[in-house]
Amino acid sequence: MDKKTAELSDAFKQNTAPKRFIKNSINGTRHTIAISSAKGGVGKSTFAMNFALALKSTGSKVGILDADIYGPSLPKMMSINMKPESKDGESLRPIEQYGIQCMSIGFLVDEETPMIWRGPMVTSAIKTFTEKVSWNNLDFIVVDMPPGTGDTQLTFAQQIKVDGVIIISTPQEVALLDVKRGIKMFDKLKVPIIGLVDNMSFFESDEGKKYNIFGEGGVEKVAKVYNKKFLGKIPLNIDLRTAADNGKPLFAINPDHKISKIFSEITKKVKESFP
Amino acid sequence: MDKKTAELSDAFKQNTAPKRFIKNSINGTRHTIAISSAKGGVGKSTFAMNFALALKSTGSKVGILDADIYGPSLPKMMSINMKPESKDGESLRPIEQYGIQCMSIGFLVDEETPMIWRGPMVTSAIKTFTEKVSWNNLDFIVVDMPPGTGDTQLTFAQQIKVDGVIIISTPQEVALLDVKRGIKMFDKLKVPIIGLVDNMSFFESDEGKKYNIFGEGGVEKVAKVYNKKFLGKIPLNIDLRTAADNGKPLFAINPDHKISKIFSEITKKVKESFP
Repeated sequence: MDKKTAELSDAFKQNTAPKRFIKNSINGTRHTIAISSAKGGVGKSTFAMNFALALKSTGSKVGILDADIYGPSLPKMMSINMKPESKDGESLRPIEQYGIQCMSIGFLVDEETPMIWRGPMVTSAIKTFTEKVSWNNLDFIVVDMPPGTGDTQLTFAQQIKVDGVIIISTPQEVALLDVKRGIKMFDKLKVPIIGLVDNMSFFESDEGKKYNIFGEGGVEKVAKVYNKKFLGKIPLNIDLRTAADNGKPLFAINPDHKISKIFSEITKKVKESFP
Repeated sequence: MDKKTAELSDAFKQNTAPKRFIKNSINGTRHTIAISSAKGGVGKSTFAMNFALALKSTGSKVGILDADIYGPSLPKMMSINMKPESKDGESLRPIEQYGIQCMSIGFLVDEETPMIWRGPMVTSAIKTFTEKVSWNNLDFIVVDMPPGTGDTQLTFAQQIKVDGVIIISTPQEVALLDVKRGIKMFDKLKVPIIGLVDNMSFFESDEGKKYNIFGEGGVEKVAKVYNKKFLGKIPLNIDLRTAADNGKPLFAINPDHKISKIFSEITKKVKESFP
């Protein structure tokens, strides 16, 4: 490329984040765990719900903040059809479902309404959710992040003390590229990465045959290369998807399901990061 | 909710888009077709590549603009490892691969570099790609949109004459919510919707048994309810995924594959919208 184009490119590539920020925990919570994937559609929200429930089953008080402004799925996945109350006209009270305190942009608008917003509006909404929600004495708040490496990720990394990120991916090569970008982003923003999860890892037919529809072992390999913890594999499972579609997370209705047990194992590994 | 909260919510819900814009075609192209899905990870990029190749096989001159700034996958999926030339220091020349003119942010940076950008930076990049790329006499430019309903979607809808959008979705309930949001967004922004595609529709085991891993028939139902054309179903297929991971789109290496034939059928239906 010639000089002129290179200049444009350099300006674009600069780190837009200033160097230092005052980072606080979200009010009313002790630890913040973000569930992230630079790529969408890898089962991040389904993971977040079931992980939150598994975390609660270990005796912790848990909340979920659905930070996906463009594609909120918490209301549907947790069967929440009510609007949050506000006693003082300032704060929003989270809605409790399955013993989990929940908040989502989807509680404030009709579920089919698209949020046709540019970045600064998204940032404002995220600030409202981190500053104005009256979370009640939570040990953990699980944040379901949107895909990408943009406004929401920057706002969290710069303004919130995020104790750790769990990165979810499917194992195909094209998705792994996004995992690498995600790792580099969080390392750059100095947000600790708890570990990586390989989701939709394989599909098992009724005959017990395993199909590596999205490839095999990719996420674990990336974890090794980048020296991150590998938290486990979750197969493509129709029960898990059906439960989410029905608004009844699998871990809530069947904690003894083989998939629920995988969530418990992953949760145990995650808790090692919080002694 | 009380008054104060309701006010905030109303302000947020307002349509941020002014009413009228001057919309032009992208220079050097006749028709713009956007491939969209409010939800990520539904196979949008894989669809865009194979659809572009199917379109080319009908005798049209075709280009692909990868508009996913946070998660570009065109370089990987089309095996492009070079940087675009700029003869005059202003414009960028697209890179031709498999007879398709291609442009992606991934050509300008290392493939593992995350674009940690807030919205306005994304908008600038999109403007560069729509105004400064010297597309050469294309009948169709296929735009691979990022997930969401934000900066990129607004910039395209307001500044480019988009002739039509193809909405891709997997059939699970939670994904369909995003389809409905996408339809409402494009209707509101007055961008015509060509039709809907049901992707990862089912999985067929070696024994020929069909598994509706993500549910069944959902996308077609939504198309009916919203009075949109249903363009077809594409099953989960390991050959299709492997080809994308290897940087050799299935339609390019095997145009007679049963999945390639589905792409040809969908393309035929799409071309009916361009008499």
